[in-house]
Amino acid sequence: MANDREPGPLIVIGGHEDKEGDRAILRAVAERLKGGKLVLATIASHQPDGYFESYLAAFADLGVTDLVELYVDDRGETHDPEKLAVLDGAAGVFFSGGDQLRIASQIGDTPIESKVREIHRNGGVIAGTSAGAAVMSETMLVGGSSGESHRIGDLHMAPGLGLIRDAIIDQHFAERGRIGRLLGAVAHNPRILGIGIDEDTAILVEGPQFSVLGAGAVYVVDAEEVTQSNVAEARSASALSLHDVRLHVLAAGDRFDLERRAPIGAGADRPRPAFR
Amino acid sequence: MANDREPGPLIVIGGHEDKEGDRAILRAVAERLKGGKLVLATIASHQPDGYFESYLAAFADLGVTDLVELYVDDRGETHDPEKLAVLDGAAGVFFSGGDQLRIASQIGDTPIESKVREIHRNGGVIAGTSAGAAVMSETMLVGGSSGESHRIGDLHMAPGLGLIRDAIIDQHFAERGRIGRLLGAVAHNPRILGIGIDEDTAILVEGPQFSVLGAGAVYVVDAEEVTQSNVAEARSASALSLHDVRLHVLAAGDRFDLERRAPIGAGADRPRPAFR
Repeated sequence: MANDREPGPLIVIGGHEDKEGDRAILRAVAERLKGGKLVLATIASHQPDGYFESYLAAFADLGVTDLVELYVDDRGETHDPEKLAVLDGAAGVFFSGGDQLRIASQIGDTPIESKVREIHRNGGVIAGTSAGAAVMSETMLVGGSSGESHRIGDLHMAPGLGLIRDAIIDQHFAERGRIGRLLGAVAHNPRILGIGIDEDTAILVEGPQFSVLGAGAVYVVDAEEVTQSNVAEARSASALSLHDVRLHVLAAGDRFDLERRAPIGAGADRPRPAFR
Repeated sequence: MANDREPGPLIVIGGHEDKEGDRAILRAVAERLKGGKLVLATIASHQPDGYFESYLAAFADLGVTDLVELYVDDRGETHDPEKLAVLDGAAGVFFSGGDQLRIASQIGDTPIESKVREIHRNGGVIAGTSAGAAVMSETMLVGGSSGESHRIGDLHMAPGLGLIRDAIIDQHFAERGRIGRLLGAVAHNPRILGIGIDEDTAILVEGPQFSVLGAGAVYVVDAEEVTQSNVAEARSASALSLHDVRLHVLAAGDRFDLERRAPIGAGADRPRPAFR
């Protein structure tokens, strides 16, 4: 399909975004819809009851007056013309939380997914929180231990929707102590940048850059300069060893260049190691 | 006092070291005592009952036959000749867990502390687990949130025993999600290297190097190359921003040079940024 528009923004949220106070993140979603229709995709949840009402209330006075829910019970429904029609004319799609594997396994390679991509390609906003954030990755994190260091072999990854290339997203990041598993993930292939997003915190991806929104921090884990890793050699269940990781801790207002793999601003002009 | 011996090793343990299985860490302590007397300093605890018995059992078949307990109820007791005599002829001192502030406030600048330093200077082993690990730092972490990103102002540091210079130790590291607070700590002064030690994991410091022992990982956080930090500018309680941190994840067998601030081995010969 011919298309002269830029792809729309992605808003990737670490879970538990504020729904009652300032709502900085939902406000950013609302602003980018410009009064258009938002589809709340509750597909990640096994029991989506209540999600829609909660977001309806949260978005009510942010100018989002056209909010509709999209749920699919099983994969067969993804071809249902009535389900597909829910996405007609949408200015954005918001994936709520649950299980990222449900999103990928239910809508991956279906007309629903095609239509979500089309909305994005045509400038629509795609937002996702928690599982809805994880699923944006090219290769997504599905499971792995929180609150401990990475153990060789203890990680479950799978193909995600791939709206963000060359990065893997983790969420509920500081709250669930997930630095270990994100380091484990990037160790598998340092081409992939690790992005860990705290609760009530988001990255707003526009083109090759993102900015940080919300109350917490975003951790970017870059293993490109790693000098030693035991991920392929060590015995299963032994602790990960990974030397010379670059780590950026980003807070609201910070911006990051995904292509240069560097923060924008003070950090952008720093000398880089000779072998880059 | 004239002294032609090298200072002894430090064994700094992240808490919950194995006391029943392989006991790799306690075994390393025992080996360095060479059959000599070990003083178990339970000073960090408000209720030290049971600690001694637990270590007595754990060390029993590791060749530590001379284990004695040192406890001080309050600071006045630190001048008591009977208490001081407990340290006579000790080949090592092991600080058990509790509250690091209790150790520093009860024995800091007392004859007990002087005697511990003397034992170390003369080649004795000083070991510490949990609070007993934290207190080894020059400036020690006393309090700060676990399981969340660092918030400006939310950190409590105090002068420690200073057996390790230029480094700040955190413990129960991955288990309690403490990367945030360690990053916060080093942001205050990047001269200080952050060392986060998992449970059942230890660093064995000999001279300017350490090696890693045990089941988990050790995280070294080096803020020397940081290009941007908001620690002095941001509003209280806002999230930390810290760009270009170097992070090393070390596992059993890995070694680290504290002076060069670099892992020993594969990582040691890597190019360093031009401004170092």
